[in-house]
Amino acid sequence: MATGMQNWRVTLSYDGTDFAGWQVQPGLRTIQGELQQALGRITGESPLPQGSGRTDAGVHALAQVASFQLRVPIPPENLARALNQTLPTAIRAISTVHALDDFHARHSARGKAYEYRIFTGDVCSPFLARYCWEPPWQLNLGDLQQAAKFALGQHDFTSFRAVDPDLSQRNAQVETDSVREIFHSEWEQAGPEMLVYHVRGNGFLHHMVRNLVGTFVDVGRGFQTPESIVRIIATKNRAAAGPTAPAAGLFLKQVEYGEPS
Amino acid sequence: MATGMQNWRVTLSYDGTDFAGWQVQPGLRTIQGELQQALGRITGESPLPQGSGRTDAGVHALAQVASFQLRVPIPPENLARALNQTLPTAIRAISTVHALDDFHARHSARGKAYEYRIFTGDVCSPFLARYCWEPPWQLNLGDLQQAAKFALGQHDFTSFRAVDPDLSQRNAQVETDSVREIFHSEWEQAGPEMLVYHVRGNGFLHHMVRNLVGTFVDVGRGFQTPESIVRIIATKNRAAAGPTAPAAGLFLKQVEYGEPS
Repeated sequence: MATGMQNWRVTLSYDGTDFAGWQVQPGLRTIQGELQQALGRITGESPLPQGSGRTDAGVHALAQVASFQLRVPIPPENLARALNQTLPTAIRAISTVHALDDFHARHSARGKAYEYRIFTGDVCSPFLARYCWEPPWQLNLGDLQQAAKFALGQHDFTSFRAVDPDLSQRNAQVETDSVREIFHSEWEQAGPEMLVYHVRGNGFLHHMVRNLVGTFVDVGRGFQTPESIVRIIATKNRAAAGPTAPAAGLFLKQVEYGEPS
Repeated sequence: MATGMQNWRVTLSYDGTDFAGWQVQPGLRTIQGELQQALGRITGESPLPQGSGRTDAGVHALAQVASFQLRVPIPPENLARALNQTLPTAIRAISTVHALDDFHARHSARGKAYEYRIFTGDVCSPFLARYCWEPPWQLNLGDLQQAAKFALGQHDFTSFRAVDPDLSQRNAQVETDSVREIFHSEWEQAGPEMLVYHVRGNGFLHHMVRNLVGTFVDVGRGFQTPESIVRIIATKNRAAAGPTAPAAGLFLKQVEYGEPS
């Protein structure tokens, strides 16, 4: 980091519905782009904020973490207030603090937690529809719970990784390794009409949570057995797993760091 | 009603954020227009559904009521399902039933209930921002509650009626009379960071609830006394009342009919 720069850590919550994902893309509204522009308007500096990872178009965050450096000295509470006055109301800075010099939102991350919300009732409220998936099948919660357990532990998750030639080329150096460890993987009945999948791990491949959920739903509707998760993982072939669940149900819930920064 | 026609009553819930209000307008997405199009796609008939009243752009409904006639015989449960398969997920038909021949969503209405949500915390969640107003002032709940009581009863509410030459001309025949009766008018603390205004009456003028809320907020921030509501009503002058509160906080909660239809 250049001398005289202050490293910052901002935790963001956002409704991803109307954004083309985290990553800056020309001509599109993105979370990273909105944050960069807000910083520019507030400070006159426009560092490209580094996220803990990209979220795809339509995916939400309860607590995404971004880091960036600023030259201008500004008290954290002032930057916090200015960000929330400048950002669109669909993006909120819920924590804005100085970070240690070596903190980096992606490189320093040790783990992440997501949740995925599925509506199982008859008619999904228009005030929930942006924040869940409404699959057309009846789902067996016991089977979902059993299937989720088979994803626990350290595995090569190639079967649940997006097959995306463009992306895998771009990330060839970053993500050659498909081995990840899942610490927590559980379905919960959250109220009479909502099922929530909670997953926590040391890292996730592109589309991994949504591909896991799409496969679990294949199990929950009786199209696959819970045990088939074991075979699907072993196959290391995306074609063996189920479809990608829609973005709307997915929330990045927490990014974990080894040390307070 | 023409012979052989079936009269229908549909109750809709909608997130009004991305619509230009209830009423059909050329080139704009409206609730009435979406419902008419959905009926057309399902039945081949495109009656213009009559709402209990217009909601403005950005205003939400927990239970708006619409009536229309169809020639085609279709079981209510089938029309209900087809509507929810055809309408955008921001609009849901929560009840779809046959109505008596003389039922009309607007003419038969005896009363309406609205609520208005105000966020009072520090940082409003992006998942709530579409559904509340976040005024920049500290509000005194006791003063809000006192002010709300002064709106109870039968009054000429001209001071709280939108001054809109275009609209008042269009509605000259419908809304010459500005006398309305309010049965219930109360502010509630709904959780630590939300205030909700509940109002129920025999009818409401254009912008009446939002103008009442804007004026109550003037009271809650100490800019007016609670008793000033009495004077403002007596003045019969829109300029005496406060600003129009934003659409996002307003929900049409219920439409009341004298008889089950």
